[in-house]
Amino acid sequence: MPPPQSPPTVVVPPSDLHRHLGGLLATGEGADVTFEVEGKTFAAHRWVLAARSPVFRVALFGATTGGADDVVRVNIDAMKVQDFEALLHYMYTDSLPEMKGGEAAAMLPDLVAAANRYKMERLRLVCEHKLCEYVNGRTVVAMLAFAGEHQCNGLKEKCLRFLDDPVKLREIVQAEGVENLSKSYPSILKDVIAKFVATPVDS
Amino acid sequence: MPPPQSPPTVVVPPSDLHRHLGGLLATGEGADVTFEVEGKTFAAHRWVLAARSPVFRVALFGATTGGADDVVRVNIDAMKVQDFEALLHYMYTDSLPEMKGGEAAAMLPDLVAAANRYKMERLRLVCEHKLCEYVNGRTVVAMLAFAGEHQCNGLKEKCLRFLDDPVKLREIVQAEGVENLSKSYPSILKDVIAKFVATPVDS
Repeated sequence: MPPPQSPPTVVVPPSDLHRHLGGLLATGEGADVTFEVEGKTFAAHRWVLAARSPVFRVALFGATTGGADDVVRVNIDAMKVQDFEALLHYMYTDSLPEMKGGEAAAMLPDLVAAANRYKMERLRLVCEHKLCEYVNGRTVVAMLAFAGEHQCNGLKEKCLRFLDDPVKLREIVQAEGVENLSKSYPSILKDVIAKFVATPVDS
Repeated sequence: MPPPQSPPTVVVPPSDLHRHLGGLLATGEGADVTFEVEGKTFAAHRWVLAARSPVFRVALFGATTGGADDVVRVNIDAMKVQDFEALLHYMYTDSLPEMKGGEAAAMLPDLVAAANRYKMERLRLVCEHKLCEYVNGRTVVAMLAFAGEHQCNGLKEKCLRFLDDPVKLREIVQAEGVENLSKSYPSILKDVIAKFVATPVDS
């Protein structure tokens, strides 16, 4: 029998890079860009955003860099304040801020869209992963449509697995109506119908 | 029995913040400070360093901030090029660069000193943790002295545990000589002598 291992004398704490950068965002010290979203302003650091998103990189350091000195002002359109706040939080810390249930359900789809817009693959997966928790009989059709429109293959797979239950599938198609499905969610009708057809008649 | 769990449809990759910041260091884009170490220059981002080390924060944004605009030049004394390179790598990525055995043994004590100098507690613990691998009959006395001088309590504990073996302890005291120990490492003599005295005579 090997001798019992004595406990290590040095314990290295987990990485604190995200905490240090989160502090930088919270204080706004040294910020060199200001974003305006729905009338609210956010101070940030151009190099953090550029390192995190190739789209921000081009936007902030592209053709019109000018002097690297002045604080740049940028307007963000078509985004809600709380979504942009969460996006910044993610960029500095690699995690989403705490969200309550209803808030999360409202924000996560917006953040998936933002992740695609700013080419932040991991953020999209973080959101997709959380959205999977909200797949149920009431949401699955809308989720499936959303997943198809926003390149969320994992979320789509989750929805299709949910519909693998023939009883649930039948209930949902009856509740939504094939007519409505084909009008509101034409892109997913093929998937749903394929499953429906494959369902044993006596189930 | 609960039904078997199907595998998750969305797998979130590990945090990539350190990789993105590492890329920023590698390209030097947007750098606003240049360090000169033994004639070699390093471009960096002041706010990364300030977020990571309170000493750098004061040095770079203290009384003489001046315009926040110009690229600042800073000379670093009493530090080797490869040590400063490793320090920067750590600041951007929370990890040390790859080091070969001999290189690590030479650099880790320097990096402990740098971590204390720049008040980077976690870096000191990362180095201390690695230094523990180098504690053996040849190194233990020097390590113990080093640990005492640089507030490395975990490394000190590791050395003292090593000396818990009465045979090893006796061999080392005989090899080093009490005279030499008292001259070269007066600070640790107390610890070693205390252990020596406590050792059973017939061991």
